[in-house]
Amino acid sequence: MKEQLKQVTHVENIRYDKEREELVIIDQTLLPGEERFLTLTTAEEMYDAIRSLKVRGAPAIGICAAYSLYTLARQIQAREPRDFLQQLQEQAAYLNSARPTAVNLSWALKEMLKTAEVRLALPREALLEALYHKAVEIHEDDIAKCRAISEYGLTLVKDGDGILTHCNAGPLATSRYGTALGPILLGTERGMRFRVFSDETRPLLQGARLTSYELYRAGVDVTLICDNMASIVMKNGWVQACFVGCDRVAANGDTANKIGTSGVAILAQYYGIPFYVLGPTSTIDMNCPDGSRIPIEQRDPGEIKEMWYEKPVALSGVPCYNPAFDVTDHRLISGIVTEKGICRAPYTESLRALFDNK
Amino acid sequence: MKEQLKQVTHVENIRYDKEREELVIIDQTLLPGEERFLTLTTAEEMYDAIRSLKVRGAPAIGICAAYSLYTLARQIQAREPRDFLQQLQEQAAYLNSARPTAVNLSWALKEMLKTAEVRLALPREALLEALYHKAVEIHEDDIAKCRAISEYGLTLVKDGDGILTHCNAGPLATSRYGTALGPILLGTERGMRFRVFSDETRPLLQGARLTSYELYRAGVDVTLICDNMASIVMKNGWVQACFVGCDRVAANGDTANKIGTSGVAILAQYYGIPFYVLGPTSTIDMNCPDGSRIPIEQRDPGEIKEMWYEKPVALSGVPCYNPAFDVTDHRLISGIVTEKGICRAPYTESLRALFDNK
Repeated sequence: MKEQLKQVTHVENIRYDKEREELVIIDQTLLPGEERFLTLTTAEEMYDAIRSLKVRGAPAIGICAAYSLYTLARQIQAREPRDFLQQLQEQAAYLNSARPTAVNLSWALKEMLKTAEVRLALPREALLEALYHKAVEIHEDDIAKCRAISEYGLTLVKDGDGILTHCNAGPLATSRYGTALGPILLGTERGMRFRVFSDETRPLLQGARLTSYELYRAGVDVTLICDNMASIVMKNGWVQACFVGCDRVAANGDTANKIGTSGVAILAQYYGIPFYVLGPTSTIDMNCPDGSRIPIEQRDPGEIKEMWYEKPVALSGVPCYNPAFDVTDHRLISGIVTEKGICRAPYTESLRALFDNK
Repeated sequence: MKEQLKQVTHVENIRYDKEREELVIIDQTLLPGEERFLTLTTAEEMYDAIRSLKVRGAPAIGICAAYSLYTLARQIQAREPRDFLQQLQEQAAYLNSARPTAVNLSWALKEMLKTAEVRLALPREALLEALYHKAVEIHEDDIAKCRAISEYGLTLVKDGDGILTHCNAGPLATSRYGTALGPILLGTERGMRFRVFSDETRPLLQGARLTSYELYRAGVDVTLICDNMASIVMKNGWVQACFVGCDRVAANGDTANKIGTSGVAILAQYYGIPFYVLGPTSTIDMNCPDGSRIPIEQRDPGEIKEMWYEKPVALSGVPCYNPAFDVTDHRLISGIVTEKGICRAPYTESLRALFDNK
């Protein structure tokens, strides 16, 4: 089992090669058919990689953005500290505009900018070195956080449980264990057996292409279903817990995650199944009071009607509504699993406590 | 608007050409890209057309089966009445095995067999003529029923309402107006305006390929969404009613319909939106006490992983669960709209009354 798991974690989603000074990502849009690696050099390539979901998953986007900003910092010619910072801020703003919903993107970019701001007086090489180390820190920090989230999440399920997940919050979306898939992978390493149902997650099929791929390669008993089959799977009594990731958690616990997550939570409540959100505290936006303030990214109708298909599946004139995320009401959430522990309702208090104790 | 509607109803899903003695259907698996008509001659072609969803929709399957059995009756060589009936029964059993969930298929075949049984003493031509007229009667009866269902359904919504539908229960699935789409098409003819959301309905995409096609061509304001977007669309306040068809209604009101229907009903209840099932009384199976007795057809995993796609979207080893239907609990249903009127809870009584008053 461990050997098989290695195969999965071996597919590194983001790698910074310091000797070559190269940022390399796996193109997640081509999985599982092809494992193609891309070197990101220009700001446009980085923006496109995030925008078009070549790199995706809230934590992974943050890590990629950090390495991206370091890579772009090395390209800045300005010698005057204020000019350097201004150009760095402009690049950060550009990258940040690639996707509006996930908070990790802006969080990681802000961390990088803060690192530069307090070191502007340093020689250029020392400043760049500090930026590199900050990016590595964000990356390693995520690995450690995913591990901790996995440990906490594992306390919520028992051997033999059925677990339903939506979209992809595994190694590809984060680092190593992942968030929602972390307890499953960690438990599997320890000899536990789960029966996992992976929603295919239309329109971009992250559940089919990425989650079932990661779990299958890790030797987990995974069954792929269409999103609209979650209800019958729950009714059949096959699901003891739902595990999902998150792109932004508001201060009251309302959670933005992949489109369809709120539907899964409503079904889980109806069938009396606990519904857990798993993510690092960097995903919690204490400045956002509730879910109504989270911007929801609208994407191209072509993703619904044309993408993946041999030919369009609807008339060209038919309009589509294609929000990339929805917000799950905090009252539907049984627990929010972070690297610092499991928060329970009332979330306004339990989430705040995470930051007060820092 | 009427002109555009004509375009829709002009695409006849099933046509029996009496002069040529030919049963012709439109191949619904090729829509909306191609309007290809197929002549069904052999039992194997008929079985395949039903099995592979070239003809689909519970009422349409019943109509097609009736004409099919008439066509096959004409091919039976046996002159001995008992042999004739036995062969006809064998053909009916074969066609009936094409799809297990919809009750209309077995209902229409039984109607045809009953017609033959009581006329076995007649000369061959007269017997065949009676079978032909029974098939036409089933067809015309469905047209009239759809019209009546549409009228009753229209009383449940008002001008400007948003309506969400799942799968396809329009003209292609039935006759003329359809069931779930009937009130929308009838209201549109009368100058009412609805905003319709069509779930794409994975894995076979009937909502994308057929419902959005039918409604768009009829000039209805239709928006295509992925199944997992129904929750956010309801949360946005855009839906005042859900209209769905049905494949089998049990005596207590539990309703088998396209996979995902139960999820829509649970979401509707959560958001306080009425959820209506529309179908002819021939879809009600009073011999089936509740939904647990309705057989659920399991289909090929390839429909999830490979069908429609340029290349498979999941690893070949990943198992899929692919039920074609699910059962919506009667407690989630606000009303069952039949050609005889609208049944409300308690359904055990209101459905029985439909048959008592016959």
